Amino acid sequence: MKASIIAVGTELLFGQVANTNAAYLSDKLNHMGFDVMYHFVVGDNPMRLKDKLAEAFKDTDLVLTTGGLGPTQDDLTKEIVAEYMGAEMYLDNRVVDDLTEFFNRHGGNMPENNMKQAYLPVGCTPFYNASGTAPGFALQKDGKTAICFPGPPRELKWLFENGAGQYLEQFMEKKMFYRVLRLIGIGESDLEMLLMPLIDGQTDPTIATYAKEGECSLRVASQRDTMEEAEAAVEEMIAKIDELAGNYIYSYNNEDLNEVVVRMLKEKNLKITSAESCTGGLFASTLTDVPGASDVLSTAYITYSSESKIEELGVWNEIISCCGVVSAETAEAMAKGALERSGADIAVSVTGYAGPDADEGHDPGEAFIGWAYNGEAGSYSVRTDRNFRKWNRNYFMLRMFRTVYLLLRQNTQK
Amino acid sequence: MKASIIAVGTELLFGQVANTNAAYLSDKLNHMGFDVMYHFVVGDNPMRLKDKLAEAFKDTDLVLTTGGLGPTQDDLTKEIVAEYMGAEMYLDNRVVDDLTEFFNRHGGNMPENNMKQAYLPVGCTPFYNASGTAPGFALQKDGKTAICFPGPPRELKWLFENGAGQYLEQFMEKKMFYRVLRLIGIGESDLEMLLMPLIDGQTDPTIATYAKEGECSLRVASQRDTMEEAEAAVEEMIAKIDELAGNYIYSYNNEDLNEVVVRMLKEKNLKITSAESCTGGLFASTLTDVPGASDVLSTAYITYSSESKIEELGVWNEIISCCGVVSAETAEAMAKGALERSGADIAVSVTGYAGPDADEGHDPGEAFIGWAYNGEAGSYSVRTDRNFRKWNRNYFMLRMFRTVYLLLRQNTQK
Repeated sequence: MKASIIAVGTELLFGQVANTNAAYLSDKLNHMGFDVMYHFVVGDNPMRLKDKLAEAFKDTDLVLTTGGLGPTQDDLTKEIVAEYMGAEMYLDNRVVDDLTEFFNRHGGNMPENNMKQAYLPVGCTPFYNASGTAPGFALQKDGKTAICFPGPPRELKWLFENGAGQYLEQFMEKKMFYRVLRLIGIGESDLEMLLMPLIDGQTDPTIATYAKEGECSLRVASQRDTMEEAEAAVEEMIAKIDELAGNYIYSYNNEDLNEVVVRMLKEKNLKITSAESCTGGLFASTLTDVPGASDVLSTAYITYSSESKIEELGVWNEIISCCGVVSAETAEAMAKGALERSGADIAVSVTGYAGPDADEGHDPGEAFIGWAYNGEAGSYSVRTDRNFRKWNRNYFMLRMFRTVYLLLRQNTQK
Repeated sequence: MKASIIAVGTELLFGQVANTNAAYLSDKLNHMGFDVMYHFVVGDNPMRLKDKLAEAFKDTDLVLTTGGLGPTQDDLTKEIVAEYMGAEMYLDNRVVDDLTEFFNRHGGNMPENNMKQAYLPVGCTPFYNASGTAPGFALQKDGKTAICFPGPPRELKWLFENGAGQYLEQFMEKKMFYRVLRLIGIGESDLEMLLMPLIDGQTDPTIATYAKEGECSLRVASQRDTMEEAEAAVEEMIAKIDELAGNYIYSYNNEDLNEVVVRMLKEKNLKITSAESCTGGLFASTLTDVPGASDVLSTAYITYSSESKIEELGVWNEIISCCGVVSAETAEAMAKGALERSGADIAVSVTGYAGPDADEGHDPGEAFIGWAYNGEAGSYSVRTDRNFRKWNRNYFMLRMFRTVYLLLRQNTQK
């Protein structure tokens, strides 16, 4: 079944926020075998919303809307969709109770204008909202279905997982199965050239390459009559991909590198520590984004200044004064110091210039990654040919993860 | 002038990535006084792209496209746009040289299929790309203008800042000036009620409220014949807003809270340190996202385990065993310990349960924020009524920034 997503919100057209809701819903819909054909974004404007609703329903039978269910004057999605589907509004007592309870729980009185959220289209399937004040709903007419979600990503996800997702199952025709493989160490066009014999003229499973900063992913998808057939087709294709590109694949289940690293550390029952300079804790906070990271990380260090590297990590003053604070020697000494001081089993460190400005005459985008593991230690330089502070920091952080990943993978059967 | 943005890329419809390019371009276009009416997302499909091009040009005279300029088979945006505008393609020698040089610099040979990127529509204004391999371009016909950007956000930004932005200035009619105010400590609907007397029936300047997790922003915009008039109108309105909501405003220039905090620390010539448990370095890495953070942060601590809090920060074993590792007492002791150990002037700490699972029978979403400054120290509890690990971590981090902000603001004239 073909689907479209219409996001309503002037803030999206102002560029104050990116349309992450459409990404979330698209992922869910694809996973259920829907064909997402279009995303639309319109402002809080009745005429243009009506116009895009008609456009979306022209090519697709399922239209999901996000946003415009709030309590404020310019929240009009519910009213427009109801009008388009020819439905009156009614006051839903369950929502009235939910709202009252919500504001009691938050120890405040309900602002008058919130009562607006208690009205729903007659004949809709309501999705009551325990994560916020705006209920969602589904409305059908003449084989067309509209489902309206509130704008806040957290509430939208809650409503999808607690009602809307289940509601959508009635439309599932063919079963779709897909896997996303994640790769490091190869660029998108090299990857596509490498896999060309598999991609060329391939209809099902489909193989889509996608490049992210510092890595690539491969989406292998199949639509068949049964989930078993689809899964078998995907696994068969992945086996072929593995023969051609196996060395670059770090996850066969769309795990992020930090998830993979935490999993490997747990499997080997190892503790990790980090000593970060220019990344300022980005590595540790990304690692601890993974639930259960407390099993593998006890202590980590952010040593921004030279003094801090000396006092916190015991890096010798001489190393810094002779080799420089951004040097292979300092990076290695930071990793060794962190390992010793924390009593962890593996340590990774970074010292570098993130930019945006040149530092001590050094171009930004240069850093050294250090490591200590298994009685050995080392370091190497990484360089980016651009100057975007955030990107540099992110790139250095990814290289830290990649370093740990390769160290752990060395003595592991894949 | 009315504008639309068409993003081309199946990965967007698969939900593998959010449409941050549209957000970036929308912000830039609004700032220049363009009216962004629509965002569209279509897959790598010639017919549907043609269809959306026609749709976009129906209502708007300027259409920006992103994506589909890559070297791979399914990159077709350039060809479709050229065909729609009735232009042939030519081989651009400058791009050929750029490509050759790019791959030399990266120490590799150019994959054959990259040569595809050297073809441009006849009569276009090329935007040569020093940040990647795909050039952008602008193409005009019958008062309609199409501008095509590559998909990678970094390259798109580079091309906008180095050519496309300047090219767009020829279309600027009325001058627009706007400011985005950032607020903490008030919800969106309360804020709108508070400002209703200003918002009601207001045409220019316009006031738009927008809610983010943990904070709100206000966009005050005016379009006038001269930039001076527009700016004056905006400043006059902001003075009125200040009277009603001044206490909640932490930035009048759309600064993030971390930028404001770094600026205040610099102005007061203070050093900060942090001791993070459940946030695992998120505070420090967010603080050091701000260029020049090295002036205000020398050392920070990530103390995930109880042992680490004792060994690294000198928290008394007794405090942890009596009051618990997640307690007001531990949070305060962490802040004091970090301050003493680092020699900084102000310290902030957090210990809590980020989730997703209940920990030692405690519900996730509970944490204590500690602080030490000016010979005083304290702590307080924060609680979220949801259980999303990432969101909890983010919320705790924001509360740490808010704590520092309020401590620094106390003895500051606003």
